[in-house]
Amino acid sequence: MGRYGAAAVIIGNEVLTAKIQDLNGPLLARRLRDRGIPLRSMSTVPDEIDAIVEAVSRAREIARYLFTSGGIGPTHDDVTVRAVALALGRNVVRLPSVEQMVRAHYGPSMAPQALRLAEAPEGTELLRTEGIWYPVLHCDGVYLLPGVPQLFGHQLDAVLAQLPGTPLALRSLYLSADEPQIAPVLDRLAADMPLVAIGSYPEFDRRAGYRVKVTVENVERALVEEAVGRLERELPQGSILRIE
Amino acid sequence: MGRYGAAAVIIGNEVLTAKIQDLNGPLLARRLRDRGIPLRSMSTVPDEIDAIVEAVSRAREIARYLFTSGGIGPTHDDVTVRAVALALGRNVVRLPSVEQMVRAHYGPSMAPQALRLAEAPEGTELLRTEGIWYPVLHCDGVYLLPGVPQLFGHQLDAVLAQLPGTPLALRSLYLSADEPQIAPVLDRLAADMPLVAIGSYPEFDRRAGYRVKVTVENVERALVEEAVGRLERELPQGSILRIE
Repeated sequence: MGRYGAAAVIIGNEVLTAKIQDLNGPLLARRLRDRGIPLRSMSTVPDEIDAIVEAVSRAREIARYLFTSGGIGPTHDDVTVRAVALALGRNVVRLPSVEQMVRAHYGPSMAPQALRLAEAPEGTELLRTEGIWYPVLHCDGVYLLPGVPQLFGHQLDAVLAQLPGTPLALRSLYLSADEPQIAPVLDRLAADMPLVAIGSYPEFDRRAGYRVKVTVENVERALVEEAVGRLERELPQGSILRIE
Repeated sequence: MGRYGAAAVIIGNEVLTAKIQDLNGPLLARRLRDRGIPLRSMSTVPDEIDAIVEAVSRAREIARYLFTSGGIGPTHDDVTVRAVALALGRNVVRLPSVEQMVRAHYGPSMAPQALRLAEAPEGTELLRTEGIWYPVLHCDGVYLLPGVPQLFGHQLDAVLAQLPGTPLALRSLYLSADEPQIAPVLDRLAADMPLVAIGSYPEFDRRAGYRVKVTVENVERALVEEAVGRLERELPQGSILRIE
């Protein structure tokens, strides 16, 4: 298949130590789904160069677009730019246009460390986002987004507006049968229609009113409908409570 | 350092496609923190054998304990047991004691696919959890937990009760200064006390009443207090609003 879709690398000691709960990964998953871009993997790593380099390199083996979250800033724990540059085999340079933005933002009393915000992998493109003074850094399909959720969301929307995508067709079947009862039917369907993504999610809370939710997904609505038709014919009689 | 701490592999198309938001990763992060076991990495991969094998193998290179979430069950998309066995270089076998549990749970009308729940990597140990009929599968430091959050949480607690750990000492400093202003002090402190984890988290919402939160962490409380003392002396005068 080669590289396709997107991947995420969440850079965050604060997530791994449960100081905060990551909101950016789930937001990215939703936004990518809405744009029809498959999210292939998501990994959370500490603010350490080696860990980030490895996660970025692996993600780039499978995904065409990579979004990093966090580690952009002027303090010692902001190592994303250096790590991404290493993973891409590029030098870190100071971008004059970003230096101007940083100087304008912080004014004459700026601490010299603020200029670290002007560093980026060589060859980085900038993407301006309305209402945010700091641009998105983009290099070789890697988008370096800030970890602060409000900023991450704004900048993500600016990036996604530029990318091509096809929304997925999705149907969900709610069943009164349990998973062992439906497994043979799902097995055959998955074997016969390998391009259609079929999910099976048991629900153990009786108040939900169903026992298993089966999802059927593809970019082609006709394929999804064909798979749903097969399920309607082959699942145990009366086991489908509703289809959405 | 060799292998230490824990890692997580979340197996879930439903998370990557944003059908559900993962609760198990954040819960695991909190529980591990409370037990003083560092979480080294967390990755979310699709329900595909190759992707799981790779994620499990990588996680085991750095972490002593690995928790998988999801992909345990009788349907075609439940491939965690096979993937973990491959990553560990072990065969998949049917465990007679689990077969007994499965037969007792589903009763005489059991579909034969239910017996897939009795399969495990060869050499797997079982850990019983009160109130849940299905045991935790444990093999070579890998704990295979179910994806359903209620079950995941119960079984996780049973596992963690068995593992050794030392709770971390943590102090948080809330500052009125911005990150560039404090960066030189944090740089020096991080260089002088490399074992102490120092985090710097800007807050852009003015209503929060501070501009940066700095965290200082270590298993040794004395080291943490020493680092906090240095910050109190070296940060710009009057910039510390409060310490927690």
